[in-house]
Amino acid sequence: MLALYHFGPVANSLTPLLCLIEKGVDFDDRFLSSRRWEHHTAEFQAISPEGMVPVLVHDDRIVTESTVINEYLEDVFPAMPLRPADPWTRARMRVWTKYVDEFFCPALTVLGAHGATPFVSQIDKDEMQRRLERMPNAEVRKKWAIISERGFDEAELAEARSRLKRVIDKMEAALADNGDWIVGDAYSLADIKLYSMAPGVERILPDICSETASPNVFAWLRRIEARPAVQQMRGKDYAR
Amino acid sequence: MLALYHFGPVANSLTPLLCLIEKGVDFDDRFLSSRRWEHHTAEFQAISPEGMVPVLVHDDRIVTESTVINEYLEDVFPAMPLRPADPWTRARMRVWTKYVDEFFCPALTVLGAHGATPFVSQIDKDEMQRRLERMPNAEVRKKWAIISERGFDEAELAEARSRLKRVIDKMEAALADNGDWIVGDAYSLADIKLYSMAPGVERILPDICSETASPNVFAWLRRIEARPAVQQMRGKDYAR
Repeated sequence: MLALYHFGPVANSLTPLLCLIEKGVDFDDRFLSSRRWEHHTAEFQAISPEGMVPVLVHDDRIVTESTVINEYLEDVFPAMPLRPADPWTRARMRVWTKYVDEFFCPALTVLGAHGATPFVSQIDKDEMQRRLERMPNAEVRKKWAIISERGFDEAELAEARSRLKRVIDKMEAALADNGDWIVGDAYSLADIKLYSMAPGVERILPDICSETASPNVFAWLRRIEARPAVQQMRGKDYAR
Repeated sequence: MLALYHFGPVANSLTPLLCLIEKGVDFDDRFLSSRRWEHHTAEFQAISPEGMVPVLVHDDRIVTESTVINEYLEDVFPAMPLRPADPWTRARMRVWTKYVDEFFCPALTVLGAHGATPFVSQIDKDEMQRRLERMPNAEVRKKWAIISERGFDEAELAEARSRLKRVIDKMEAALADNGDWIVGDAYSLADIKLYSMAPGVERILPDICSETASPNVFAWLRRIEARPAVQQMRGKDYAR
């Protein structure tokens, strides 16, 4: 049995979802609605005690963290490899996936969470308090407390935008140097990980990420979107 | 040619240093003095443009990020394996190394940097400004600006201590559940990564990490210290 619990083809949930589709591995598709707080039910917390998504369940084994899940999928399903064979290219792939987890994702999360403020601020205060108390992960709880109480302030938003500019500049330079893909001569887990976040920057910050502002990243996004696995992923209604 | 640039057997520099010694791989030992700011020389920045340490140089290839360096060493020198053979145990190893990078290390860095305030505050202001301007990494620059201007405030220090308590509690529970080592039935890269940070908690916060406060972590620290590779590492004067 192989099952993926996910929020659909966006951010950290996209990472293992696309990897599974690229590899053509059959899996049970377990969509959770974040708007209906389905990741905070007792049923799901039996699988993921901190309510963190995505989670892969493989027979009786639970694998967490999207970056780790994809390395696990490479270890268990080595056909259709998405991890470079050369150790040095593989190391650079890992530097990129780490960079997304530690720098790209936190910056984009600030803007994404800020965008959720109008929705979250409509939730009844007592109900929001009960939801906060049910959130088992302290950092997630803190983020939602900020969003529901005040939203991020202008300095925090400016810092996030500045970081995202640096991310896109770094990708732009890497693609100018390396060619079609972010490391080596083939599409890899580094491209998938970056693609889990980059469309969000293109949508929210077109002054930073667009055909004119970042032509290499723009062309790279279109190359990824043209992949059959990505079209298959985009063609499915996960929020059914 | 295999060379490791490092700050000695502490924090992120310890991670690849101990891995190399455990594997018995010969390497050029390139100690850099952080107090003499040797990682901000033009010579070193030709190798590591952002002045980040540790760095592994293998023939003409440069590998950065201690966690990635250790995975690279496993890929290139598979003898004396420190990465579990079982994919699921390997995934749990990676969740731990990721946790150290994203949660444990940042929290310990706040207290470590705070401890450096008396030393840093003695540096002439103009000289400190010149040093800040030479720091190519924005996050590192920001950290040193905080230390040299005001130090961290009590709320920041309390938050860091609270996080470190959660780290030690988590390690304590994992060791109670798993036995001698943090994952699987053998010492692995997860133990090395945690050992790069845990002695700092034992030294700075004995109320959190000690024989009485965290007996499993205490016994695990002593098990690691008894390893020949660790004794070899501790027996050498890196700050020569």
